[in-house]
Amino acid sequence: MTSVQQVLESSKRDHDRYLTEFREYLSIPSISTLSEHKQDVQRCAEWLANQLYGIGFKNVEVLATAGHPVVYGEWLNAPGKPTVLVYGHYDVQPVDPLNEWTSPPFEPSVRGDNIYARGASDMKGQGHAVLKALEAWLKSGGLPVNVKMFFEGEEEIGSRNLEPFVEKYKSKLKCDFVLNCDSHILKPDVPSLVYGLRGLGYFEVWVYGAKSDLHSGGFGGAVHNPAQVLCELIAGMHDANGHVTLPGFYDKVRVLSKEERVELARIPISDEAWQEMTGTKLLYGEKGFTTVERIGGRPTLEVNGFLSGFTGEGSKTVLPAKAMAKISMRLVPEQDNGAVENQLKEYLRKNAPQTVTWEVKNLTSAPAVLVDRNTPAMRAAASALQATFGVRPLFQLAGGSVPVVNMVKTRLGVDSVLLGFGLPDDNIHAPNERQHLPTYYRGIEAYIRFFYLVSQK
Amino acid sequence: MTSVQQVLESSKRDHDRYLTEFREYLSIPSISTLSEHKQDVQRCAEWLANQLYGIGFKNVEVLATAGHPVVYGEWLNAPGKPTVLVYGHYDVQPVDPLNEWTSPPFEPSVRGDNIYARGASDMKGQGHAVLKALEAWLKSGGLPVNVKMFFEGEEEIGSRNLEPFVEKYKSKLKCDFVLNCDSHILKPDVPSLVYGLRGLGYFEVWVYGAKSDLHSGGFGGAVHNPAQVLCELIAGMHDANGHVTLPGFYDKVRVLSKEERVELARIPISDEAWQEMTGTKLLYGEKGFTTVERIGGRPTLEVNGFLSGFTGEGSKTVLPAKAMAKISMRLVPEQDNGAVENQLKEYLRKNAPQTVTWEVKNLTSAPAVLVDRNTPAMRAAASALQATFGVRPLFQLAGGSVPVVNMVKTRLGVDSVLLGFGLPDDNIHAPNERQHLPTYYRGIEAYIRFFYLVSQK
Repeated sequence: MTSVQQVLESSKRDHDRYLTEFREYLSIPSISTLSEHKQDVQRCAEWLANQLYGIGFKNVEVLATAGHPVVYGEWLNAPGKPTVLVYGHYDVQPVDPLNEWTSPPFEPSVRGDNIYARGASDMKGQGHAVLKALEAWLKSGGLPVNVKMFFEGEEEIGSRNLEPFVEKYKSKLKCDFVLNCDSHILKPDVPSLVYGLRGLGYFEVWVYGAKSDLHSGGFGGAVHNPAQVLCELIAGMHDANGHVTLPGFYDKVRVLSKEERVELARIPISDEAWQEMTGTKLLYGEKGFTTVERIGGRPTLEVNGFLSGFTGEGSKTVLPAKAMAKISMRLVPEQDNGAVENQLKEYLRKNAPQTVTWEVKNLTSAPAVLVDRNTPAMRAAASALQATFGVRPLFQLAGGSVPVVNMVKTRLGVDSVLLGFGLPDDNIHAPNERQHLPTYYRGIEAYIRFFYLVSQK
Repeated sequence: MTSVQQVLESSKRDHDRYLTEFREYLSIPSISTLSEHKQDVQRCAEWLANQLYGIGFKNVEVLATAGHPVVYGEWLNAPGKPTVLVYGHYDVQPVDPLNEWTSPPFEPSVRGDNIYARGASDMKGQGHAVLKALEAWLKSGGLPVNVKMFFEGEEEIGSRNLEPFVEKYKSKLKCDFVLNCDSHILKPDVPSLVYGLRGLGYFEVWVYGAKSDLHSGGFGGAVHNPAQVLCELIAGMHDANGHVTLPGFYDKVRVLSKEERVELARIPISDEAWQEMTGTKLLYGEKGFTTVERIGGRPTLEVNGFLSGFTGEGSKTVLPAKAMAKISMRLVPEQDNGAVENQLKEYLRKNAPQTVTWEVKNLTSAPAVLVDRNTPAMRAAASALQATFGVRPLFQLAGGSVPVVNMVKTRLGVDSVLLGFGLPDDNIHAPNERQHLPTYYRGIEAYIRFFYLVSQK
């Protein structure tokens, strides 16, 4: 049997080739939310399948769903060893505002220690790192565990067709636990493991006034402006202390334990660092909680987008007929993600004036998730990080949502280990997304160690 | 000398030709606010100049300004008679949302009694009607008064280059009074004369948060969302009684006299009719005033447009870096249109949180205007309407802004008569703009009579 050390060393010699292939992966504009990119998403799935086949995986398939396909492949030649289901996604977010990108989002550009491209960090970087870790083992003779790869193409649109897929392919996906690579560490020298993820409720709220846009001179003052009404409704969704006012919003929110708050306080990111990272004058949030707690441990409500009336060049004196806001809530355990829609509607019923009509469209929904910090797989991940980075990893709560974690718990009955190598300042979902290359290479190293360590338990 | 009756009869025989030419005028997309239509605006000016030349006007010119040109022409062969400066504009508003038009905005379509096209009512209809009235007199031997035609191409963008133009061509534009055709009547059978116009202050307000768009999971809850902040700021701009809260906003507002309120109350449009016209569930406005007073006699503040974050298809979980609203105020005498910018900035200084920065861009500005109801020209207009419609016209305050009325008062020292033939439900500045054709023909008739009546004073 090849030693971990040999695999690590053989992998290091391939770094240049890894980067060339990573660039190729990043060049495919696999934007899942835009129908004009459907063919690109398909092409990306096929690219990934070819990679899997090339490194020695068997039964590689591009499996159809009601939306974008899932890429599957397996290597099951480690009898008696655990089976790891490696989860990832190959789809990416849209790129607008395009003019704020320094280099084109699908022409990967290395500047300093980073590679810039849409999806570099979320999560083609992690996805490619785990692929190369698997390749390194296979080039050295074989993997120390059984592995099933399972990459979806709809994570950025709420994994909306994944649940029926997992249900349908339950036996194919059977495993001992999931390695979920859609994650990050705190800093290049501060490795960390996520044990909680926020859930999501994402809505469009429409307010309708007049039957069509009106002249603001001829009608202004006598007709309620739906943009103004929607502003008033949104303004009322937070109180002066930054609490969300939707009725019942906090009823089931899990209280952070004292021990957790102490552990979270160890995370070495000061408010000044958060300010610098985001470029804000001053942080903001719910009174009574630290920044780290606000992001990981508390629910929020955000306006993701707002559109009404004339927004082009110049001054059109229009009184808009309608206004739309995209509003989403980040949810924490034990909030009921299904209940949020009712809370939002209840708020609107109570607060919308009689002068307008309104409508709520539910776009996506996912529950929050907590994972056990003491499973063998979680301990293996912690050890792999410690060996790679030289320090014990911190445990943290992440602010984002990874719906699949809950799905595999419910449908397959297994826990997830969230081990990924994005960084908080990678500009994910934003212009100039990037992946820190030294962290990407360390990620490959940590994944190589992880597959060995879980085989030893 | 030809009698008015002969001119009216000769004009009636030309109705079919008038409509053909009107369609031609409407087909030119002279959208002044969009730079890609610059050539169309120029083409429209030339079309108009050719028309003027064709009906017998002299010294017809397309005069350059810093923006779109002014069309000028004169007929000065009525010695001893007054000189009327006929004002109008040949530019139109943008057409978005385009998908709400039943027929394309620049392919005029007659349905029932109306012709549908952008600019049909605001104000190619009136402009064409006065042109045809002048033509009818000239075909019958000559006009009973001296006339100078003066049509600008920037009314829809606040007539921003007109003031230096009027100053430069002061002697060319010298006249006894202005006939301003950019106006309307209340209903097809309720003629009316506007004696007051609201002014305008039009601004863009920008709120800036993080340096770029952020992931709403990774940062939501810890960074102030500029869309939320802008909503809160806009929400605070009205109180529960519909009053505008900008500091000092009402300080100089002219109080409506008892006599005026009685005259305004005669306007036969019920709140139910306003609701039906606009397609709203319920009207809205400043407590203590009727709908007609709210529109003509009271200042307002409107959101004309709002844009922030992701507004495309699907659910992008972004925390926007910035938010923009187009906000305009309709002003009444004696509000200072220059002071409104300071009031807005003062409000933002007092109310914007320290977590964001903001910026105000002043796009256009115009003072409100009141005209004397008892000048000879105003009485001639009232008589022309009474003779054409068979009833005495009502006096009304209009909600829109016609900056040129104030400009000719200040620069040329003359009053304006606002005589135009739009209708309140013509969908101006909105999809499916239209002109009521029977009213357009009556407009031609009223203008023919008006030119005769002012020659008799």
